[in-house]
Amino acid sequence: MPDILHKVGLKDASPNDAFNALATLEGLSSWWTNDAQGQSQVGEVIKFRFGANGGFDMKVLELEPDKRVLWEVVDGPEEWIGTKVRFDLKQEDDFTIVLFKHLNWKEPVEFMHHCSTKWGVFLMSLKSLVETGKGAPYPDDVLIDNWR
Amino acid sequence: MPDILHKVGLKDASPNDAFNALATLEGLSSWWTNDAQGQSQVGEVIKFRFGANGGFDMKVLELEPDKRVLWEVVDGPEEWIGTKVRFDLKQEDDFTIVLFKHLNWKEPVEFMHHCSTKWGVFLMSLKSLVETGKGAPYPDDVLIDNWR
Repeated sequence: MPDILHKVGLKDASPNDAFNALATLEGLSSWWTNDAQGQSQVGEVIKFRFGANGGFDMKVLELEPDKRVLWEVVDGPEEWIGTKVRFDLKQEDDFTIVLFKHLNWKEPVEFMHHCSTKWGVFLMSLKSLVETGKGAPYPDDVLIDNWR
Repeated sequence: MPDILHKVGLKDASPNDAFNALATLEGLSSWWTNDAQGQSQVGEVIKFRFGANGGFDMKVLELEPDKRVLWEVVDGPEEWIGTKVRFDLKQEDDFTIVLFKHLNWKEPVEFMHHCSTKWGVFLMSLKSLVETGKGAPYPDDVLIDNWR
């Protein structure tokens, strides 16, 4: 099944810095969307909303401190339901590396192209948040096309 | 085989504006790398270089004005050789949409994660070039990780 893959490196940051940005509502709302509700705990659901554009409900499957965050999409656009979003962390040189995967799309539809680029832009927002203290979460996100 | 997919929309731009940025050396050197040599003609090879990071030799397979550009990688990193890079253009709303595909990777290796994010950043450079007249080609490209 088709997957979206990305890699960013967070300079002079620790895996714990990255984990905090990925495993807490405060972190997530500072780089992805300012409207994140719920609980970042295994078995719980986090609801990410993007105003009129809707959003995604993520069931937290794994939270391994400083190593991994894994979610399953339980509600949202039809193409997303059942897919998984995974962040793996490791240290390399002066960077914490984030390997990102949005796994198990059914088909490589145009929406998948859009989401791939948009994930890249949001991961650059994560990088900026951890390196400088300021990300660009929705509604201050970088626009990429006619779908936002 | 795993593919990298992206979508960007170039606001208030025509498919011809996008095609010129993708099908001429002047265009390509204004958003991807300032070191692009060769001929952008079907059957010819364009050599893209990124200083000490090496580069890619692309054989031009298709140049359909205002519609499509297709290259085959004939030299470069082992993981890239034999892969294809494709840009499809269409108009939608006030945007020219660029659907991008880097097709037929053998394996979803870490380098593919890196290249996916980096293509996204370069396509945002293409967007900026066409919308504002100024892109961010190598060596002025946005850095994403420890591999640049």
